[in-house]
Amino acid sequence: MKINYKKELESAAKTMILVHDPTTLIKMIARTIVNKARVHHAGILLHDKEKDSYILTVSRGTAGLKIPSGFARMDSDNPLISFFKKRFDKQVLDDGVFIYGEAKKIANKRKIDPQVKKVLKGALYQMEIFEAVVCIPSYYRDELLGLLLLGKKKSGKKFAQDELDFFVALASDVAMAIQNALLFKELTSELDKKQRLFIHTTIALAAAIDAKDHYTHGHTARVTRISLDIAKEISLRNNHRFDDKFLEDLHVASLLHDIGKIGIPESILNKNDKLTPEEICKIKQHPTVGTTIIQPIRELDRAILGVKYHHERFDGGGYPEGLKGEEIPIIAVIISAADAFDAMTSDRPYRKALTTKQAIDEIKQGKGKQFHPEVAEALISLHHKNQL
Amino acid sequence: MKINYKKELESAAKTMILVHDPTTLIKMIARTIVNKARVHHAGILLHDKEKDSYILTVSRGTAGLKIPSGFARMDSDNPLISFFKKRFDKQVLDDGVFIYGEAKKIANKRKIDPQVKKVLKGALYQMEIFEAVVCIPSYYRDELLGLLLLGKKKSGKKFAQDELDFFVALASDVAMAIQNALLFKELTSELDKKQRLFIHTTIALAAAIDAKDHYTHGHTARVTRISLDIAKEISLRNNHRFDDKFLEDLHVASLLHDIGKIGIPESILNKNDKLTPEEICKIKQHPTVGTTIIQPIRELDRAILGVKYHHERFDGGGYPEGLKGEEIPIIAVIISAADAFDAMTSDRPYRKALTTKQAIDEIKQGKGKQFHPEVAEALISLHHKNQL
Repeated sequence: MKINYKKELESAAKTMILVHDPTTLIKMIARTIVNKARVHHAGILLHDKEKDSYILTVSRGTAGLKIPSGFARMDSDNPLISFFKKRFDKQVLDDGVFIYGEAKKIANKRKIDPQVKKVLKGALYQMEIFEAVVCIPSYYRDELLGLLLLGKKKSGKKFAQDELDFFVALASDVAMAIQNALLFKELTSELDKKQRLFIHTTIALAAAIDAKDHYTHGHTARVTRISLDIAKEISLRNNHRFDDKFLEDLHVASLLHDIGKIGIPESILNKNDKLTPEEICKIKQHPTVGTTIIQPIRELDRAILGVKYHHERFDGGGYPEGLKGEEIPIIAVIISAADAFDAMTSDRPYRKALTTKQAIDEIKQGKGKQFHPEVAEALISLHHKNQL
Repeated sequence: MKINYKKELESAAKTMILVHDPTTLIKMIARTIVNKARVHHAGILLHDKEKDSYILTVSRGTAGLKIPSGFARMDSDNPLISFFKKRFDKQVLDDGVFIYGEAKKIANKRKIDPQVKKVLKGALYQMEIFEAVVCIPSYYRDELLGLLLLGKKKSGKKFAQDELDFFVALASDVAMAIQNALLFKELTSELDKKQRLFIHTTIALAAAIDAKDHYTHGHTARVTRISLDIAKEISLRNNHRFDDKFLEDLHVASLLHDIGKIGIPESILNKNDKLTPEEICKIKQHPTVGTTIIQPIRELDRAILGVKYHHERFDGGGYPEGLKGEEIPIIAVIISAADAFDAMTSDRPYRKALTTKQAIDEIKQGKGKQFHPEVAEALISLHHKNQL
C-alpha cells in the first residue's frame, strides 16, 4: 500500500499541536515514524540545554536503536553532532538528509575539505554503531535541536524521495512543535510558581496579622481549610460544582477575612475583661476595614465580597449591612460558617471550647437562622464523614 | 521564475514559529502569499471567539480585497462561513480548496443536496463580492479558525496544483501557528495578571502593617520607590545592569522590609517618650522577625536577604549580624540606604525632618561608613538629577 505522505504530514502536524507535553510529543513522533515509514527502528536525539549534550530520548521499533552503553548521551564534540552543529551538512549534503550510503561515497572523494572529511567519517562510524541508515537534523533558528535516526526499512528497499521529503518536513514540524511544547511548559510552570508565590505570601502575611490576636492563633489557617472543605462538600452533594476560579477566590478570601483586625488596637484584641459597647463597635468594623485594605486590587473583586460579608447572618441579623438569605454572596456564606465553627471550637477568655459534636449541634440549631441551610448541611455532612 | 513551494513552506513555517504576536503573524502570512503567489490581492478572515463572527483581519495586495462596507465582519450564518463550518466542503470539494470556477460547475449540477447547493451558491456570491477566486479554510480540531481568500493571479493564469498544495499546507501551518500565538498570548497575560495580583496584595498588606506605626505612614511605599530608583541608577552608571528578576526581588523585599514590625507592640512603635534599652532591643528584632515570617516562601529566597540585612552597615556596625562591606547582600545594601534616606527626610517625635539637601549631605558623610559607596553615589546622582 502506497502511503500519501502529504496527508500523513498534515495529520501529524495537526496532532502535534494538541500535545503540549514534550515527552509525550516525542514518543508520539517516533511511533508515527516507525509505523508509517515501516523501518526496523527509529530514535530521536534531543538537545539538553543545561548540559549542552544530546540525549537519546526515545527509541522505537522491533529492537529499538542499538545503543551501546555510554552512547545514550552524546556531547557536542561527538562527530555526528558536530557535523550538523558546524553546518557541514550544508557543504556536503543536498536537502539536509544524511543518507549513510551517499555520505560514504562523498567521504571517499578527495576534493572535500580535510576537516569536513574527518568529521564526516566520524559521523558515519556513529551511524554504523547505531545501525542507522538515515539521519535528519532539526534546527530552531541556527540551533541544532535534535536528530532523527532511522534504521533500515523492513522491506529491505532504499528510502524513496517522497519518503525522505516527508522526514525532512516532519523534522521541521517536530522542531516547531517541540519548541512550542517547551515554551508552553515553561510558561505554565512560571504561572504555577507565581500562583504559589502569591498564595504563600498571603498565607505568611495573614498568619503574621493573625498572631497579633492572642486568642485566635492559627484561626486563619483553620478557617481557610474548613471553607475549602465546605465548598468541595457542596460541589459533591449538589452537583453544583464550584469551578477552580471560585475555589481560588475562596482560598484568598478566607486567608484575608480577618485582615481588617490590623486596624483594631491590640489592647482591645487581647483584652481579658468584658468589652465596652464602644470596643465592640470597633471590632465590628473589621470586615469594612479589611475591605478598604484590599479594595484597590481589581483581581480580588470576588474575594473582597467574602471579606466584606463574612459576618452577615442568613436571617438578616448580621453586620455590616444586614443582608438576608440569598442576598449574601455564597463566598461570604461559606467563610461565615467556617469562622463560626472555628470560634466555637476554640477557647475564649470567657468560656472553654465546645467539642466538635456540640458545635455541630449549634450549627443545626442555627440552620436557616445564623447559617445558610446548604452550608450548614455541608458542615453536618463533613462531621458525619469525620472530616472536620 | 518557478517557485519552489516546498522550500517556501519550510521557510514560512520556520519564520512563523518565531512570531508570538497573532496580529504580526497574520500580516506576515498575507504578505508572503501576495509576494510569492503573485496574486492581485489576498485577505484573511479570522474567527473572533467572543462575538462568534469572522473578521477580515488583513487585506494585502495592489488593491486589497474589495470589501463593501458591512462585510468586514461576517456572522456564522453567512453562506461562505457556514459552507465550511457545516463541513459541506467535505461533500463537495476535493483537497479542501474552494476554487471559484470549479465550485460554480458543481453548483450547477443537479445531483447535490438542495440545502448544500443553496449554501454553495451563497458562498459563490460572496466570493464574487470579494473578487476572490480561491478560498482555503483553516481548522483547529473541528473548529473553523479562519479563511484565506485569494484574488486572481497577476499573470492571468489559473492556479497550478503545486500552488494549491502550497496554500493548503500553509493554511494548516497557519492554523497551528495562530493557535500557538493565541495560547502564548493568553499565558503571558495570565502571568502578568498573577504578578500584578501578587504585587498589589503585598502592597496592600504591607501598607496595612505600615499604618500601625503612626510615625512611618507611607514609609514602605517611599522606600520601595527609592530602592528601585537606586537600582536603576546603578545599572545606568556602572553598566552593571540588574536583571528584571533582581528588580522584582528588590520590589518585593522593599515592600516587606519592615514586615517584622508586626511583632512589635503598638505601645512601643507609637511611644512619644524616649525608648528604654529593652524597647530598643525589641525594635531591633524586626529584621529577624520579618525573616521568620517570609522564610517558608522558597520563591522569595533572595528577597529575604533584603529583609534580613537592611539594618547592616558598610563598616560592620549594624545589626542583626554585623556584616561588613561586600558581605552584605546588594539587595539589602540598596534598601538600607533608601530606608535611611526616607527616615531622615521624615518628621520624628524627637526631631523635624531634614531637607533633601541636608539628607544628601548626611549620605555623603556616611559614604563608606554606614553606606556602601556605590549606593551612596547613586543616591547623590539621583539628587543631582532632581529625581529624589
